[in-house]
Amino acid sequence: MTRVEALNTENFDKAPTFDDINLAAQRLRGWAVETPLLESSMINEVVKGRVLLKAETFQRTGSFKFRGAFNRISQIPEAKRENGVVAYSSGNHAQGVAAAAAITGIPAVIVMPADAPAIKVENTRSFGAEVVLYDRRHDSREEIGRELTEQRRATLVRPYDDPGIIAGQGTCGMEIVSQARAIDAKLDSLLVCCGGGGLTAGCAIALEELSPETEVLTVEPSAFDDTKRSITAGEIVANSGHEASICDALLAPQPGMLTFSINRKRISRGLSVTDTEVKAAMAFAFRNLKLVVEPGGAVCLAAVLSGKFDCAGRTVALTLSGGNVDAELYRTVLAEHD
Amino acid sequence: MTRVEALNTENFDKAPTFDDINLAAQRLRGWAVETPLLESSMINEVVKGRVLLKAETFQRTGSFKFRGAFNRISQIPEAKRENGVVAYSSGNHAQGVAAAAAITGIPAVIVMPADAPAIKVENTRSFGAEVVLYDRRHDSREEIGRELTEQRRATLVRPYDDPGIIAGQGTCGMEIVSQARAIDAKLDSLLVCCGGGGLTAGCAIALEELSPETEVLTVEPSAFDDTKRSITAGEIVANSGHEASICDALLAPQPGMLTFSINRKRISRGLSVTDTEVKAAMAFAFRNLKLVVEPGGAVCLAAVLSGKFDCAGRTVALTLSGGNVDAELYRTVLAEHD
Repeated sequence: MTRVEALNTENFDKAPTFDDINLAAQRLRGWAVETPLLESSMINEVVKGRVLLKAETFQRTGSFKFRGAFNRISQIPEAKRENGVVAYSSGNHAQGVAAAAAITGIPAVIVMPADAPAIKVENTRSFGAEVVLYDRRHDSREEIGRELTEQRRATLVRPYDDPGIIAGQGTCGMEIVSQARAIDAKLDSLLVCCGGGGLTAGCAIALEELSPETEVLTVEPSAFDDTKRSITAGEIVANSGHEASICDALLAPQPGMLTFSINRKRISRGLSVTDTEVKAAMAFAFRNLKLVVEPGGAVCLAAVLSGKFDCAGRTVALTLSGGNVDAELYRTVLAEHD
Repeated sequence: MTRVEALNTENFDKAPTFDDINLAAQRLRGWAVETPLLESSMINEVVKGRVLLKAETFQRTGSFKFRGAFNRISQIPEAKRENGVVAYSSGNHAQGVAAAAAITGIPAVIVMPADAPAIKVENTRSFGAEVVLYDRRHDSREEIGRELTEQRRATLVRPYDDPGIIAGQGTCGMEIVSQARAIDAKLDSLLVCCGGGGLTAGCAIALEELSPETEVLTVEPSAFDDTKRSITAGEIVANSGHEASICDALLAPQPGMLTFSINRKRISRGLSVTDTEVKAAMAFAFRNLKLVVEPGGAVCLAAVLSGKFDCAGRTVALTLSGGNVDAELYRTVLAEHD
């Protein structure tokens, strides 16, 4: 068993229920943004179907990660709060934890890769968190996180393999269902951007209760399609560790133990998209949707626009999970697609 | 009397009423997008107030202009439809008219400046409209438009000085009021991006009925602050004609006769912002709001962020009136503000 797995075993049988998502929604009220479910006649015409875009780009901290982080951190018992929280993250979970910790008055230290987008590191610091950088190729973020947690007797806030995190992310799925109903849209499918699988697991639990007729699919970068392959294999399969992708938010080494135990039963299939398709989707979002979407947040849109997922005659919701992209990369993407 | 004024005299006493805006809203249902009124904790913290952003960037054709164009064009009598419509526009009205004409099955010819953003010319053509380009410095778009209208016995769809257009744009103000009420926000002020004054006039009529306690202000580019100066002077004052601005959507030579007759009584004061402030606002919207906003659509945000309008302790709605910006300009703006 690898180090990652050992860390997570304690949560193995703690899958959150729909009630946990409901409670998370109550905790998040007034703090999280109920992000809009947008529709564009332009994209509908292109894909010959109805596409509803859940714009978590507008969530506090610029990604859905605030939902899980706030739900988890707001449940830390009073006596444990002064020791603070520790998190490791490529950037969006970092910002979510930093913002949630700032709101609840808890000190936060975040372990981030040195090559994380500058916008994510700067924003994390701007919420008052202490940032510890590590080398993605040589250091283990889990080990650094564990050491810091032990030293400070802090609470470790994992990015996805935690029932409190999953329940928080599930509020996104809950909103998608109720917003779709409000415009009389009957969802055939929901596409979810997938890294470690926390957003997917939360949404899958929410939809199982609220819209069981909707199929839930994951979308990943081609080089990090561990959830897709794990679902096919029926067991956890890791990424090679030698690949790269511009989707910095979706580079988890393998599906979480808890998230996979939830997702394997509820995900109909996994899709994957190339970085080239992701960049085309980001440029499409700029030009036609007027939305700034980061690479990892654009994988579902890429699946739809590339035709890898066929929307013809269907009503499809998808997550635009974040918008924290550096201006430099964004300019390059626009230049390539002008 | 100048040529512009002569063209518009027929509409002088035809200011739309609130009932006309209500009827426009009914016509637009199912065609126009009810764009979201967004809120960002990031911007609220920066300006120490509550800012609500009406994201007309998500409107069909990427700007509010579809509202007025569709309302106006859908009222053209059956017998006159086959002769088509003619419009002159720097780009957003062009797209609004082209899209509305396509939906209603009416041929459209649009007179556009040769230096209009490429995205606006391409989109206008993509809706099936015929585009006639003119030289902004040497030709009169009104004259070209009038000639085409006479030749084809077509209907001229003016960009702002038309009661049908103004009533359509007023649906934007109507939505702002009802969306603000839905989140228990009591609007102290509404800032409106102002070119010829059509959006301003429509919103002012809507707010006079629905939220008379809210002050309505215009925001213009500094070099095109004709409405601001006209309101101060109590009569129509034109721009010099020798200035330039990146706000291509807001370069009307002077306030419309009809729009000014409405706005002079309802606008508390006019504000203006520099191109430098506009670019900073566009970059802020990219980085912190994840919204693609074109220069002319960012003037109200620029007024708020620059401190020219003080939001401290106040609840302020503002229009982000469009998002049709060329990638090349956008990349330059991001590079300047990285």
